[in-house]
Amino acid sequence: MPKVTVHRKAHFNAAHRLYKKEWSDKKNFEVFGKCSNPNYHGHNYELIVSVTGNIDQETGFVMDLAILRRLIKVEIEEVFDHKNLNIEVAAFKNLNPTAENISVTIYNKLREKIRQDLDLSIKLYETPRNFVTYSGE
Amino acid sequence: MPKVTVHRKAHFNAAHRLYKKEWSDKKNFEVFGKCSNPNYHGHNYELIVSVTGNIDQETGFVMDLAILRRLIKVEIEEVFDHKNLNIEVAAFKNLNPTAENISVTIYNKLREKIRQDLDLSIKLYETPRNFVTYSGE
Amino acid sequence: MPKVTVHRKAHFNAAHRLYKKEWSDKKNFEVFGKCSNPNYHGHNYELIVSVTGNIDQETGFVMDLAILRRLIKVEIEEVFDHKNLNIEVAAFKNLNPTAENISVTIYNKLREKIRQDLDLSIKLYETPRNFVTYSGE
Amino acid sequence: MPKVTVHRKAHFNAAHRLYKKEWSDKKNFEVFGKCSNPNYHGHNYELIVSVTGNIDQETGFVMDLAILRRLIKVEIEEVFDHKNLNIEVAAFKNLNPTAENISVTIYNKLREKIRQDLDLSIKLYETPRNFVTYSGE
Amino acid sequence: MPKVTVHRKAHFNAAHRLYKKEWSDKKNFEVFGKCSNPNYHGHNYELIVSVTGNIDQETGFVMDLAILRRLIKVEIEEVFDHKNLNIEVAAFKNLNPTAENISVTIYNKLREKIRQDLDLSIKLYETPRNFVTYSGE
Amino acid sequence: MPKVTVHRKAHFNAAHRLYKKEWSDKKNFEVFGKCSNPNYHGHNYELIVSVTGNIDQETGFVMDLAILRRLIKVEIEEVFDHKNLNIEVAAFKNLNPTAENISVTIYNKLREKIRQDLDLSIKLYETPRNFVTYSGE
Repeated sequence: MPKVTVHRKAHFNAAHRLYKKEWSDKKNFEVFGKCSNPNYHGHNYELIVSVTGNIDQETGFVMDLAILRRLIKVEIEEVFDHKNLNIEVAAFKNLNPTAENISVTIYNKLREKIRQDLDLSIKLYETPRNFVTYSGE
Repeated sequence: MPKVTVHRKAHFNAAHRLYKKEWSDKKNFEVFGKCSNPNYHGHNYELIVSVTGNIDQETGFVMDLAILRRLIKVEIEEVFDHKNLNIEVAAFKNLNPTAENISVTIYNKLREKIRQDLDLSIKLYETPRNFVTYSGE
Repeated sequence: MPKVTVHRKAHFNAAHRLYKKEWSDKKNFEVFGKCSNPNYHGHNYELIVSVTGNIDQETGFVMDLAILRRLIKVEIEEVFDHKNLNIEVAAFKNLNPTAENISVTIYNKLREKIRQDLDLSIKLYETPRNFVTYSGE
Repeated sequence: MPKVTVHRKAHFNAAHRLYKKEWSDKKNFEVFGKCSNPNYHGHNYELIVSVTGNIDQETGFVMDLAILRRLIKVEIEEVFDHKNLNIEVAAFKNLNPTAENISVTIYNKLREKIRQDLDLSIKLYETPRNFVTYSGE
Repeated sequence: MPKVTVHRKAHFNAAHRLYKKEWSDKKNFEVFGKCSNPNYHGHNYELIVSVTGNIDQETGFVMDLAILRRLIKVEIEEVFDHKNLNIEVAAFKNLNPTAENISVTIYNKLREKIRQDLDLSIKLYETPRNFVTYSGE
Repeated sequence: MPKVTVHRKAHFNAAHRLYKKEWSDKKNFEVFGKCSNPNYHGHNYELIVSVTGNIDQETGFVMDLAILRRLIKVEIEEVFDHKNLNIEVAAFKNLNPTAENISVTIYNKLREKIRQDLDLSIKLYETPRNFVTYSGE
């Protein structure tokens, strides 16, 4: 029974700033540079969700990508797209929205909705030159 | 004397919202949808600046792309990158920062700095699927 | 009043074959090669629709890209996507579905639905290496 | 002796439909949606073949990519390109040509032709947003 | 009779240096910077050749892209690919191989081989961020 | 403590030739084909450096990508960019500059400068169709 990974690409546009509440603006600027701009900046995030499992003999699918597409739409795009991550997304009320933390947050949200015998992995492009991957380890 | 266009690609990340001050939030939402989110959202803007002119027989250049690169850096990237366009970029104090208006603003800023015998054109990607071009007409 | 072009990217997947009914299979193969395979082959067509006009002073838009996106969805994607162009798309009943003819067909369909004071142009990628442009000339 | 993976990108255009012979058209449509169109649709498949092994001290190669390129050409491109996968490719006479099953089929065909001490992996893009990976597990 | 442009993408890898024989190394470095390195550097050049004309009613083609592909292969790729442009390509014996001059050279070579009623245009990427276009004006 | 991989993309342009000093030109051509051209050819190398580790609870970073960017600039780009790899980069004085050997060389240079509790991986595109990956195994 071959084990294959299926990947689905999605995207969302959002504003954010990197900063730590407990730190002064000066300290935040030292650590996060222009990414700590209090007026926010933003990105076109490109997201690749990867699901690994055995091919179903009936359908030839690991997982129906139309279902995965809708899951990403409801759980991620509708929550993150055209939002200010710091202000409007609950997960980042007390969590710095670095690409690393966003990828873990996306993983955790999708992990609950995908069958446990399937492995899950997240790739998140903040820009075409800066991106992260997370597999739940 | 062959006439060639040279193109230089650059980028900046910024937050913005689309809205018209004179309108209510409700009217703004009707016209601009989720792009009018008062908390802002953002993009990785990709910018292509194109300059057309005769090839200089001495250098083989229409315009030294290293000079064009620095011009874009100083005039555009340092002014727009990691900024909130509505709040922090003077040009958009009273101008809605649509991709159309941003491209005209960039054109006008660069037009002053590039020799008048050279033609100028701007291509601006707001997302990989939405982009605009402007040539000063 | 600046004149700007706005571009919207879309896509559809379709099967087709190139052939001329009046010709023998042998002649079709001589002219169209493997593209004349009677069992069809297919492509991920990438479509860029470009609309040129003055910026509306109220909105800062040439044309609301959300409206253009829906227009492309209804007029083009729902008609072409996951279809066999030769069999299922009326325009190609008696017209060879070359990239050239597809682009003219798309132009003609959209031209009727877009304000006449706006210019229209079509770019259609049949593959990443083969593509066409048409502007109604 | 460093162990490196070399990757070679290739592509082919093909028509297919997803369906299970034993099922009614209605059931096929419920499971596979528009992908089960009996008249077929098609894709520009992008294929990445990855081979892992020690660097040969004589040549500095894991495997000569010119040889891998020709192998992909003969074994995959000439068999799949501009074909109807369901009708013209033997492997899919009784196997649903999902991206998952195509990737396993490609892996199996290449596995026989590549030295057994080298690891093999396949990445197959059905569209820029839907793709799969298979490593023989 | 609709007038359409067909585009074909190709590529070649080459070494070059920018310099003017009559100038000292010092002057060359002042004008061309690190691009004047006497030991050469190199690029993956991406080339797009565009041909404009009426659609042939028989074939639905402006020009058979298979013919254009072979023409580019024989006239450009076999002459430029894996070559040192300064030393091995006759056109650059006395011409600085800037992207501008390479695009004019490619245009002139292809212009002789393409029917005179068809318009020709060249786009040449030296890097993903630096590119030029030339249409014979 | 989630373990995430951060990736940073960079690039450099360089000339090289593939050959083995001990072999005749004829033998070099048999093994390396046109890549052994004694006058050199070149590439736009695209480099992705990947660093894996736990997310720092203070910053939300695995590693500050601004630091990684500068490290790549100093250690790799300034050493390789616009250079002739065979002549001007010490590592290839006695090592054939295949993509495999370049990736190992880059890995070894960066491995010394990155904290030992962080894993490192290199992806190097010689062309968009030929690329390699190396993780220090």
